[in-house]
Amino acid sequence: MRHYKATKVVIITEKLIFEGVARIIEEAGASGYTMVTAGGKGSRGMRSTTGRASVVDAFTNVKIEVITASKEMAEAIADTVAETYFDNYSGVTYLEEVEILRPHKF
Amino acid sequence: MRHYKATKVVIITEKLIFEGVARIIEEAGASGYTMVTAGGKGSRGMRSTTGRASVVDAFTNVKIEVITASKEMAEAIADTVAETYFDNYSGVTYLEEVEILRPHKF
Amino acid sequence: MRHYKATKVVIITEKLIFEGVARIIEEAGASGYTMVTAGGKGSRGMRSTTGRASVVDAFTNVKIEVITASKEMAEAIADTVAETYFDNYSGVTYLEEVEILRPHKF
Repeated sequence: MRHYKATKVVIITEKLIFEGVARIIEEAGASGYTMVTAGGKGSRGMRSTTGRASVVDAFTNVKIEVITASKEMAEAIADTVAETYFDNYSGVTYLEEVEILRPHKF
Repeated sequence: MRHYKATKVVIITEKLIFEGVARIIEEAGASGYTMVTAGGKGSRGMRSTTGRASVVDAFTNVKIEVITASKEMAEAIADTVAETYFDNYSGVTYLEEVEILRPHKF
Repeated sequence: MRHYKATKVVIITEKLIFEGVARIIEEAGASGYTMVTAGGKGSRGMRSTTGRASVVDAFTNVKIEVITASKEMAEAIADTVAETYFDNYSGVTYLEEVEILRPHKF
């Protein structure tokens, strides 16, 4: 089966703004995304999961991944999320090159 | 310490078929995998975690990652999972190039 | 918006040693990390989440990701974690090339 180049956008941010980020992803034309709850520690006060508190209870972040067929869409999503939210909420976003099966699915 | 090129296969699909996917991975000769529970929204009706329902309760998907020492094994896993399940279950699969420590561990 | 090359370190290991791994990451100079709870099966006895037990209950591993501005820092983190823990605990570590926004955040 043939594989195709695609770009994955990863957004790690506060769970509070998940729905707004999902809306940006959908409005950009992506056909789907995956999200997991995450903990962590960041340079701008993202909640730490170290210390005495339970690691599991402190999972107040989300990691969202979007596979896009074009790098332009990936960059648009990353930039819009950063411009809309990252002055006021903790978050990071980055891109990775991947190879997908079934490009019509994205 | 030296690093070595390897291929990571990522499979995001419904939790219902996790055990079948794990069996395909093991039968392909991979020595391990990692899985996390995930939510999301896809082009073929993967359950959405947006809307009013709790984000956490709606995590009915799994994201499975396998590091393989050969790209052939990675492609075989991705293709077998897609051919076995993706006509009837929601799912996506993609490959990423990574650099690993300790290649004998994989 | 411009994007910049960076290196992501991924560490998948037992939840038991999460705080020690986090300390290594911070001491290496990284400004943050993300972690999710994970299940899986590995070549050295990492707990399996297949079988009869609940998939969710068996999540005794963590997957930790660190974005670093230099590949040297990424390698130092991966190597120190492996040398400190992987003789006695299950774990794997690998590097991926990514493109980030806002390099000052890392």
